[in-house]
Amino acid sequence: MKKSLGAKTLVYPLPVWVVGTYDKERKPNVATVAWGGICCSDPPCIAISLRKATYSYGNIIEKKAFTINVPSEKYVREVDYFGTVSGRDVDKFAESGLTSMESDMVDAPYVKEFPVVLECKLIHTIEIGLHTEFIGEIMDVKAEEFMLMENGSIDIEKLKPVIFAPDISGYYGIGKPIGKAFSIGRKR
Amino acid sequence: MKKSLGAKTLVYPLPVWVVGTYDKERKPNVATVAWGGICCSDPPCIAISLRKATYSYGNIIEKKAFTINVPSEKYVREVDYFGTVSGRDVDKFAESGLTSMESDMVDAPYVKEFPVVLECKLIHTIEIGLHTEFIGEIMDVKAEEFMLMENGSIDIEKLKPVIFAPDISGYYGIGKPIGKAFSIGRKR
Repeated sequence: MKKSLGAKTLVYPLPVWVVGTYDKERKPNVATVAWGGICCSDPPCIAISLRKATYSYGNIIEKKAFTINVPSEKYVREVDYFGTVSGRDVDKFAESGLTSMESDMVDAPYVKEFPVVLECKLIHTIEIGLHTEFIGEIMDVKAEEFMLMENGSIDIEKLKPVIFAPDISGYYGIGKPIGKAFSIGRKR
Repeated sequence: MKKSLGAKTLVYPLPVWVVGTYDKERKPNVATVAWGGICCSDPPCIAISLRKATYSYGNIIEKKAFTINVPSEKYVREVDYFGTVSGRDVDKFAESGLTSMESDMVDAPYVKEFPVVLECKLIHTIEIGLHTEFIGEIMDVKAEEFMLMENGSIDIEKLKPVIFAPDISGYYGIGKPIGKAFSIGRKR
């Protein structure tokens, strides 16, 4: 029996990503987001949503660029910290001890220690309500070599991405493989 | 050392959701998506992206409504099947043995057996490229009572949502809790 829980952003799983941006003076900033997802295969695009009040919002409007950094679970403390303070007040790279690197393709920094980064060029800005959605074209993906499999694919079990549970504000790790897509459903 | 993998939709984790729609004759359809995410807190909104060629695309344009159904991992076969055939050719509910239910708030069906459903009213349509992004306002969330905790929150360890790894086309389960958001990063 289903119970109505009301009009809420309750859905599972959600990602945990860190958005990298430069401000006007080119000070690098990072902010943690769970509101986002892939939105197009061709051109490859990713969407993230931010409130106008955030420092990253102004940076993206200014630079028309951002990075999406995928943390491994061992960085969960830094990731949570990035989501609880504003780049207006602190230098999050300096405070966390993590390292800002310049992207090759766009005018935005990435987090050197995080294993996967997407360099994104802003192509659409959609005003929705409290949040504005930024759609970025993915210009390049970079991944640490030690987590690539022989065929060049990313090994998700080495990456260990973080998953967000919105209702209980919990971070979770990735679990076991449960099937091959475009395959397991055909054997019926 | 990071290696460039090119301009691709490679990011982790991604969700596995099933979109419910009616066609013109009110035949219910379901389609599996991994391109999507929450995009606004107020009004609460979720975005999904579909190719114009899909049956669901026309249904959403027609009805201005869809549901997002969150499957538990035990339904991974049905979920994969829903993503590999078109509602133009088959009745996916009949073929899978799952049950179509009418939503209360919008003109779209949901999957009775799946534990969480979001009833969504289309409020924005964004043409990006191969995919079109549909932004739906979440009018209600419904969840099976047996997976609610005492405080009314959804227990993600009972829900067991499915996670998608795009590069290797793999489905994964949820793992262990690794921290409390807006909390673990403050203890530094």
